Formats: sequence, C-alpha cells, structure tokens
Amino acid sequence: MPINPSPSWRDLHWLSELGSPLLTDLYQLTMLRAYLAHDMLAEAVFEFYVRRLPEQRNFLVAAGLEQLLDVLETFSFSDAELSWLEEQGIADNNLLRYLREFRFAGDVYAVPEGTVVFANEPLVRVVAPLPQAQLIESRLVNLLNFQTLIATKAARCSIVANGELMVDFGMRRAHGAEAAALASRAAYVGGFNGTATVLAGRLFDIPVYGTMAHSFVQAHDNERLAFEHFANSQPENVVLLIDTYDTIAGAREVLALLPLLRESGIEVRAVRLDSGDLIALSREVRAVFDAGGGADIQIFASGGLNEYEIERIIAAQAPINGFGVGTDLDVSADAPKLDCAYKLQEYAGRARRKRSTGKATWPGRKQIYRHCREDGILAGDTVGLDAEETPGASLLKPMMLGGRRVAKREPLDQLQQRCRESMERLPTSLKSLSEPADYPVDVSVAVRALADEIDRGTTC
Amino acid sequence: MPINPSPSWRDLHWLSELGSPLLTDLYQLTMLRAYLAHDMLAEAVFEFYVRRLPEQRNFLVAAGLEQLLDVLETFSFSDAELSWLEEQGIADNNLLRYLREFRFAGDVYAVPEGTVVFANEPLVRVVAPLPQAQLIESRLVNLLNFQTLIATKAARCSIVANGELMVDFGMRRAHGAEAAALASRAAYVGGFNGTATVLAGRLFDIPVYGTMAHSFVQAHDNERLAFEHFANSQPENVVLLIDTYDTIAGAREVLALLPLLRESGIEVRAVRLDSGDLIALSREVRAVFDAGGGADIQIFASGGLNEYEIERIIAAQAPINGFGVGTDLDVSADAPKLDCAYKLQEYAGRARRKRSTGKATWPGRKQIYRHCREDGILAGDTVGLDAEETPGASLLKPMMLGGRRVAKREPLDQLQQRCRESMERLPTSLKSLSEPADYPVDVSVAVRALADEIDRGTTC
Repeated sequence: MPINPSPSWRDLHWLSELGSPLLTDLYQLTMLRAYLAHDMLAEAVFEFYVRRLPEQRNFLVAAGLEQLLDVLETFSFSDAELSWLEEQGIADNNLLRYLREFRFAGDVYAVPEGTVVFANEPLVRVVAPLPQAQLIESRLVNLLNFQTLIATKAARCSIVANGELMVDFGMRRAHGAEAAALASRAAYVGGFNGTATVLAGRLFDIPVYGTMAHSFVQAHDNERLAFEHFANSQPENVVLLIDTYDTIAGAREVLALLPLLRESGIEVRAVRLDSGDLIALSREVRAVFDAGGGADIQIFASGGLNEYEIERIIAAQAPINGFGVGTDLDVSADAPKLDCAYKLQEYAGRARRKRSTGKATWPGRKQIYRHCREDGILAGDTVGLDAEETPGASLLKPMMLGGRRVAKREPLDQLQQRCRESMERLPTSLKSLSEPADYPVDVSVAVRALADEIDRGTTC
Repeated sequence: MPINPSPSWRDLHWLSELGSPLLTDLYQLTMLRAYLAHDMLAEAVFEFYVRRLPEQRNFLVAAGLEQLLDVLETFSFSDAELSWLEEQGIADNNLLRYLREFRFAGDVYAVPEGTVVFANEPLVRVVAPLPQAQLIESRLVNLLNFQTLIATKAARCSIVANGELMVDFGMRRAHGAEAAALASRAAYVGGFNGTATVLAGRLFDIPVYGTMAHSFVQAHDNERLAFEHFANSQPENVVLLIDTYDTIAGAREVLALLPLLRESGIEVRAVRLDSGDLIALSREVRAVFDAGGGADIQIFASGGLNEYEIERIIAAQAPINGFGVGTDLDVSADAPKLDCAYKLQEYAGRARRKRSTGKATWPGRKQIYRHCREDGILAGDTVGLDAEETPGASLLKPMMLGGRRVAKREPLDQLQQRCRESMERLPTSLKSLSEPADYPVDVSVAVRALADEIDRGTTC
C-alpha cells in the first residue's frame, strides 16, 4: 500500500504536460505537413532578434538560452501526443511518422546569457533541416523573450541600486508557474542577490529570502507578541515586518522587545517596510533605532518597487539596506513584451528575405561584431555576415552542434558576472532609466549587398 | 528495450517540477514554523480581492478558479522536496512533520469563473486552519491574478469585435509555458473562439487554428508555389498568408491560383494579413477578390492587434472576418498586473484588519450582493458580511468544503456563456475601452461597524 495515496499534482494534466512539445502554434504543424509533402527538408537558417527596443529600454540582457538548449535536447513526442494529433486530424501519416522520430539535430549559435545586446542583432542562429528549425520556433521565442525581458529589468535595477541587496518578490503576480521560476533565474542573471520563490532556489540554486506577511502580525492579538513568536521560532534570521498598523509604532515595538530577545541571545537582523512613503519612513525608523539601541538593525523595503523607485530612494540617500522587488520585475511591467522574431534567413543554400511593411529582415547567416574603446567601453556593433572578415569580437558562439551541446553549462554566477561586466562597459548615456539613448549598430556592406541581390531576384 | 530511449523533457527538473508546492514564497514556510511552534492552528479566514482596477479597466472577469481548486486538491509534498527543505535549513522537525501530512482540508467560497467583478470585492474566501490557509497564498494569487487579467482583456476584445472570429495567437510571447496554456483558456472564457496553441487545445479542448508563417513562403522560390504546396498538402483548410512581400500582389497570386486549385476541388477559405495598414489593405484585397472570382475568400487579420485596434477596424467597417490577437492579449500588455491581495479577515473567531497606508482591509467573512435593474442591467454591488441579511444575489458560492470540491466542474463553454451574459448586463459606460467609468460598490454598515470595533480594540 502506498504511503501517500492521495492524488498528486502530477496527476493534473494541465500542470504535468506543460513541457510538452505540443506547446507550439498549430501553424508549425500545418507547415510541416506541406514541407514533408513536398520534400522540403534541406538546410534552413533562422535567426532570433529583437526588431526594436521597448520605449523604456536602451539595451537588453540576453537570457533564456540554457532552457532553450534543454528543450531542444529533449524535444520528442510521446505516443499519447501523437495519437491525439492523429485523432484531431492535425497530423497526417507523413507527419506522424516524422514526429515519431523527431529529434532536434541542428546547430545553435548564440550570444551567451548575460551579454548586453541591442535591436536588430541576431541573438540566436539555428541551422537545421527546414522542418526541424521551423517546429522549434514558438517555444524558442517563448523562452528567450521572457527571460531577456526579466534579466534586462533586473539589470536596470542593478544599475541604480548602489550595491544594496535585491531580492525577487514577484512570484505571486508572475504570469504562471514557469514565469515565476524563470523570473527568479533571469533576475539573478541581471544582478539580483536572491529570490523569495522557494522552487527557484531548488531548481537553480538561487539563495532564497523570506520572513513574514501582514497576516502573521494580524493573526496575533498584538504586534509585539507576533514579533516575539517569530523571533523565538527562528532565532537565526529575525526580520520583522513593521507596517501592519503603524510603522513607527511598529519600530518602537521592536525596540521594546530587544532586551527580552537579547536575554535569549536573539538579535533582530532587520525590519521590513512595505507601504507608505518609504524614504520618510526609513529615516524615521532609522532615527528611532539609532536612538534606542537598535543601531545594528537593518531596514529592508518592499511594496510596489521597481528601478525608478529604487533610483529615487538611492538618490535621496534613504537609509534602506535592501529591496524586495516584486510584480514590476516579474512582469517587466513597463515593457511586458519584446518585439522579437525568429525569421528564415537562408534555405537550401539561398539567402532569404521578408519584405513585409515595417517587418523587413536582413538575409544570410549573420554575426555580431562588437567594437570597444581602449578603456573597454562599448563603442558600437556591426551586424555582418558570419563568413565575412570584419573587425571586432564575434558575439555568437557555437552552443549546440548536430543536436548536442558543445558549450559547457555555465553556473548562474558566471552569467551574473558577465552581465555585471556588460553593465560596467555600457556607455553612461545608455544607463539612463528614462532618457532614450542610441547605441550604434550598423549593418555591413556585405549584408546590404545580399539584401539588394535578393530584392533584384538575382541571388544565387 | 525502450522504443524511445532518448531523454525526454520529463527529465528536465525545471520543467517537470513546475507544479511543485515549493512554488511558494519562503515566508509562507517561515511563518508556518512560528505558527506551529506556538500552536496557532485555529480557523482563519482569508479573502482574495483586487484593491483597485488598472487604469484602462472598468471591470474584471473572474477566472482561474478551476486551476486553483485542482492545486488545492492535490497539494502535497514529496519526500524529495521535504529532504531538500530539511537540508536547506528551511524546515525544522515540526514543520517537516506538518508538511509531510499536509492536505488542504479547508473551505473555498468563490465567484464563479466568467463573472464580471470589481475592485474591493472578495472574489475568493478561504476558511481553513491558519497554516493551511496561509501556505496556499502565493500560488492562489499567482493563478487567479493571471487568468483574471487575460479573461478581462479577452472580454474587452469581445465587446468591440462585433461577433467576428477571435483567435489567441500569443503563445510565443506569453510569459512562459503555463502562461501560454492558461492564456488560451482564459481568453476562451472571455469570448475567444479558439487558439493557435496546440497544447491548450489538448488540455482544455479549445478549438485550435493555424495556417502558415512567413518562413513558409520565403522557403519557396516564389509565393505562388508556396500557396500551391500548402493548399495541396491540406486541402480541407486553405488559409494563405499574403503579406510576405507585397500584400496586393499576394492577393493576385491567390486569384491566379484559383482555377488550378478548383480543378482539384480545392477552395481557398481565407487569406491572412499580418502587417501594414490593415484597414486599407483589407479593402484593397476585398476589391481584388470580389472583382476576380474570389468573393468567397475571407480575410483574417493579425499583427499587433488588441481591443483598441479591433475597435478601430470594426468602426471603419473594414472587410475583415476574423482576428488573431497575440502578444497584447497573452501579456495583457496595457495592464500586465493586478493590484490584488489575499488578506486575513478573521482568526480564531475574531475579525482582523490591516491598516497599512493605502492598503487597509475590510474585516470579517464577506459576501458580494449584486443588485440589478428590472431589465437585468447591473445596478451596483454591496460588500456585506456573509452572515448579514442583505438584498441582492450572493455571488460567492461554496466551491470546496473540507478540502473536497462540492461545485460541479463547469465546461469552458458555460464559463464563456456566463461571461457573455455578464457583458450583456454591463452598463454601457463601463464598456468603453478608454473612458473611465465607475461601478457602484458600497460597503455595508455591518462591515464598517466591524472595522470601527477593531480599530477601537473592542472586537469580541
């Protein structure tokens, strides 16, 4: 008899099937039917890039590649999924046979995670037989778009946070389970110190932080009792939330409790403010603590924070020692979407180009060549053909060849370090949170010539 | 020997563990330690509500309850999860013992999905022993917040779409896998006809739609060949994307192909426009088709659509027969977050209240009483105590008692129908997409009196 006979979430199909390769757009499958029917299996080159940056963004931080490679390595259909596709009339016999054997066997070149990147730069290049490169599109965009948004938002917070502690508090308002988990990861890449999301700690080995909610205080008959209970139950990490009723009165309750706690050898490490005028309140609370024997107690702030608020708080030199950044981080509230795309650049040895209004693409297998000043500050990028001789450091590296990872998995700390270095090398004007500033990205003569050739219909 | 020996996505822990109960904020666990240490196991009442509506919203459509109930029914920790919590020093022995046995055994009262609701109304009420009601908070908010955002956005599209076909195209830019799947569901509740997301079709039995991407056209040496290949490979549903190079030329290619296709008994059902001035282009394309023997071909539009664009297109009486709404729907772009909360209202028989600046709560077990005019149009709601005698229809219904579902699972069509009726009963001023309009929600005398009592410290 099982020890644990009650139903598990693993029995819930909507939760347990989220990683399914059916997480794709139907048109990928309808196109595959046509490709298979007409033997269009030659090599295709697709590139993922961002057409233009959101209004409030002067740069992006590339993220999400690790999960993309994970997905590509394990992309396969189960018998149940195939039967369903057949029943629904979505897959004909040809397509079923193809999907049954499907393993991604292509090459992936990409900018390493944590790299700062700009509009119109190829961030990932996929080279694979056309149906393979096509089928992976939807999930590729889904993974890269989201983590890039969040790593970028986090990096913007880092720019202004002056080295103070930053913790991701956004799980509850992230858009679902995967967003919550991956937001913590991307925020860490962008410079956050940790997350409140326990699962992200488990999955990605990110430090987890957390103390108490208002309900904890409310459930007690008075605030002091709540603080005492909390401190006694976990004396190693006492952080008390003091704004449930009146922040300054809460701070005084903490002070009043100190002698009793110290008798048991317990120190209050910090308090958290979660509402009101954080700048004014932090000063008042600091003064109360400093005057009353609580000079070592740190002040942690949360509640509607984002990079703009952090910048304001730091500029005011408010005595705040750390920030919990929640919803605005996890949904990238001022820029919840990227105008990004994954487009065919070459098929069967022939460069390709889309010319739709406002959505034209540069053809060919491309590379980003990055130029730096002598002091290391970024000077500009050139988007050129991969094959051309162009000065500058090439940003796209081989990550997967023939369906197998060739690049070593990088620890998250290394990605965070890369992002930090990227930020240090960013021209000052690009670091502004609100002032638009352009970074020079030019397109090489060879790429332009190739586009012209295609437009004239004379490409080989 | 297994038929399918290569690694599956089910081996990827970040994907296969997304449903874990560790998807919570660390403070839930630290609070539980303190509750257990001090025997605070009495009955608690929490309510979920939205503090204020986003700027561009005059109403919300409640959604996400079905998944919440699923999660509550199956909320349990695995041995591996418990060991990890122990190793990390997150759980002491007390907490480990508690979590090992954890099953949600509380009551859930909620507004049925598809119901129109407003700010400051309790949408879900949870009654359970304090640690249980506390532990479920983070995921409860995560699930209700997201689907409510999307169902609302979809309902706004429905208001202006004049009954034309609407399909969710947003998977690739949804924030991760769960957002993509649940956005399709919530959009359906809000009035969408279907989705491009295959997995959502499988999980929720939502009709799936899809045709071809630009890459399909580009991969062929010319557009006509692409159209011909597509039509031949799936003659039952020919929808052709005509804006890869030049939309009007694309329309002419379709016409030129018609005789050949008709010889094989194939009809072109529709074309899709995905860029440019959709109003002007749809008129031109319509004219080309009508003049050239393609009067039956429908025109489907996509590309940056949202409720504002749909309203403009419908107002211009553009000849568009359906809309693919993508990114803006799946991220609720103009309102990607709700200012929502799950707050303690009562503990151990005593009503509770938080008074934080700008975040004060109304205490007690509450109910929404809805008032209608004689013609059925909504006239206003009263938030009263559940126990008081108040006129109006009670919106919160028992959904789960003692941890077991008591309300029948409703088919999605029924939720969509409820939403449609909600929209029909909405006062006209609230249907405006941009003009703010208030719906009267008052708080009963009994609730106000209870708040006063608590503030005076005289509550029983």
